[in-house]
Amino acid sequence: MVEKRTPIPVMEAIQKVMKFAKEGEAEVVPLEEAYGRYLAENLQADHDVPPFDRSPYDGFAIRAADSALASLEHPIEFEVIETIGAGQVATKEVGPFQAVRIMTGAQIPNDCDAVVMFEVTNEYERDGKTYMSIKRSFRPGDNISFQGEDTKKGEVLVEKGTFINPGVQALLATFGYAKVKVAKKPKIGIFATGSELLDVSEPLAPGKIRNSNAYMIQAQAIRSGATPVYFGKLADDADQCFAAIERVLHEVDILITTGGVSVGDYDYLPVIYERLGAEVLFNKIAMRPGSVTTVAQIDGKLLFGLSGNPSACYVGYELFVRPVIRTMLYSSKPYLYKTKATLLSDFPKPNPFTRFVRSYVSAKEGQLYVSPVGMDKSNIVTSLAKANALMVLPGGTRGFAKGDLVDVWLLENEKGSAQ
Amino acid sequence: MVEKRTPIPVMEAIQKVMKFAKEGEAEVVPLEEAYGRYLAENLQADHDVPPFDRSPYDGFAIRAADSALASLEHPIEFEVIETIGAGQVATKEVGPFQAVRIMTGAQIPNDCDAVVMFEVTNEYERDGKTYMSIKRSFRPGDNISFQGEDTKKGEVLVEKGTFINPGVQALLATFGYAKVKVAKKPKIGIFATGSELLDVSEPLAPGKIRNSNAYMIQAQAIRSGATPVYFGKLADDADQCFAAIERVLHEVDILITTGGVSVGDYDYLPVIYERLGAEVLFNKIAMRPGSVTTVAQIDGKLLFGLSGNPSACYVGYELFVRPVIRTMLYSSKPYLYKTKATLLSDFPKPNPFTRFVRSYVSAKEGQLYVSPVGMDKSNIVTSLAKANALMVLPGGTRGFAKGDLVDVWLLENEKGSAQ
Repeated sequence: MVEKRTPIPVMEAIQKVMKFAKEGEAEVVPLEEAYGRYLAENLQADHDVPPFDRSPYDGFAIRAADSALASLEHPIEFEVIETIGAGQVATKEVGPFQAVRIMTGAQIPNDCDAVVMFEVTNEYERDGKTYMSIKRSFRPGDNISFQGEDTKKGEVLVEKGTFINPGVQALLATFGYAKVKVAKKPKIGIFATGSELLDVSEPLAPGKIRNSNAYMIQAQAIRSGATPVYFGKLADDADQCFAAIERVLHEVDILITTGGVSVGDYDYLPVIYERLGAEVLFNKIAMRPGSVTTVAQIDGKLLFGLSGNPSACYVGYELFVRPVIRTMLYSSKPYLYKTKATLLSDFPKPNPFTRFVRSYVSAKEGQLYVSPVGMDKSNIVTSLAKANALMVLPGGTRGFAKGDLVDVWLLENEKGSAQ
Repeated sequence: MVEKRTPIPVMEAIQKVMKFAKEGEAEVVPLEEAYGRYLAENLQADHDVPPFDRSPYDGFAIRAADSALASLEHPIEFEVIETIGAGQVATKEVGPFQAVRIMTGAQIPNDCDAVVMFEVTNEYERDGKTYMSIKRSFRPGDNISFQGEDTKKGEVLVEKGTFINPGVQALLATFGYAKVKVAKKPKIGIFATGSELLDVSEPLAPGKIRNSNAYMIQAQAIRSGATPVYFGKLADDADQCFAAIERVLHEVDILITTGGVSVGDYDYLPVIYERLGAEVLFNKIAMRPGSVTTVAQIDGKLLFGLSGNPSACYVGYELFVRPVIRTMLYSSKPYLYKTKATLLSDFPKPNPFTRFVRSYVSAKEGQLYVSPVGMDKSNIVTSLAKANALMVLPGGTRGFAKGDLVDVWLLENEKGSAQ
């Protein structure tokens, strides 16, 4: 009466899903809206940086050779023939022992090859002319930011697939990207299943719980770079489920259902997948939580049947859906950022399955530490709020002790891992 | 001719600014829009979790006492009198050697005190009735998730000022927050100054550079939780600057200008602050980059005069503006997350001032490592794109060597530090 399912290892499950992950579409947005998106093409320099030799300070541009004999005892005097601000260009020719008053960012006058900062000069007027004197010598190139010393025209500065942070935003502006080609946000359709689910605004009733998964997954979808579309609750009826899923499938890039994937009497999803003609990639994984996670594909479109239990649902999203989304966003590092941390407390429970323990990673004196948040029962929603990492404990291991170095996958790191 | 300014230590400058930081306003948003915002009140449980004793598995609810004598040799048979799914409540009284077929999440029937998972039962029919048998005994409480074992009604689960991540979003749904009281996003007005600045869509011209700071700060403002309002470029004219700033000041919570704060001939901001009647908190800091960062206040409203140089502008925002914003968002940890990391390469430059070096922090085998990104000239914008941290090197130190443990302030960590 109970269907028997064969669990597959979690890494194998991820690989099966990722075979169907492919790059998504691109769209063009104004620079003002580019922050937080992902580059759909390499960001290239359209000019040298600096674009011309320029002054990094407020001071005087001079011909260095004129300063050769300057000393404390024998200051050398320069006639100040012109003043240029940033954005201005010198108009006069600079002759021997002449100088141009120059502001930060302004282009070095043609005949000059050094800048003397205000602070080391003595400026004065005489007979209606302005002079300044210096008490030390300068070499050609002193205090000049040279054209192209930061970046050469044509250089690739940021690669396709990169998250657009404030620094990338500044680069886009610098190189004239008034419009930016970014990855289109994948559309994720979401259905919740389960007649025990109440809407958030409904009062509690016997046997019922509020629907938290739909809201959680919408937030996870946004965090991973996608646009969630919540289609509401599926009825506990196979025909209605089928009709609802078939109706929306073409509108979304990915479809997620939560609940209904167990082998309980009211778990209709296996039937739905069959009726849709979808290929079930797996329906049981050797992991906790989330062992009943089911993934199917139809014409290359992925259908994720995540567990109805909040923690399993959360982990299922991060493990299976996120890397697909990030691949659509052109990332070459679509997986959660994987590293290690020192366990802060004993974790004695042995388990035959790979465990993903909701945890908090912190840093101290150059070391990363990890501690599980809350008890690790799979029906506990509170621990998700405090988790910034999943601690990954391989199956078949005995418990772990305080001080052990364990694997952690960071949930809030934009960087990601390549595998 | 050149104004003399006295630099103050960076931590003192931050403290001077933070004296004017205060909690902002709150607003109510639908739960769907709460992700990414900051809680304006504590999140409390409005009911026990679980709200009733419930089954964590698909199986049979029984009276544990009835199973006492079950063994491999002597299976004990139960009559299955009813089936309940999640959200349903048992309607029949359960007598001796009777059982209820129960799905994950369903409420435990009144008379039952244990759940037997499908996997360890043998289910069959006889004479039109359904039976199951078990070959081991169960104790009262076996396989039951008890009411309130996760969370008690009234408990504070997440504190005011917390970033609403997907886990917090799930909690809000669970506890019926259909509308969520969140911190209103502070409004940050932004002006760029400098006649050398071209708009992003303009072609390059001699002596000119494109305006990248305005876009960068808008992105930094969003990242820190605020709403940027870009007012465009200020003219290089004191009267026009004054008029423009006076006109918008009442529309924003904070005003940022970039550029115009040096002691160059075209740096009008000191004059503007004076005309506005603003109190200048400081106009020179013993730090690199960003030494000319100026902050003023008028009637408690902060005016930040950030440097026009992109790196100095970036660092100035993160050091001085961000903690003010986070305080307005009710955070008790408004500063960048501060920790330490091992230096991956020599950094030999000595410097009398505290340096904030744009850096990349990575993790390996439980350790944090840091390396500077790009050369650290203050006019280099490219390094900002790759930085996820500021390496903080105290003033008065000689160079640092590979392997040294140095301070790092993380730019992309939601958690923050209390000081």
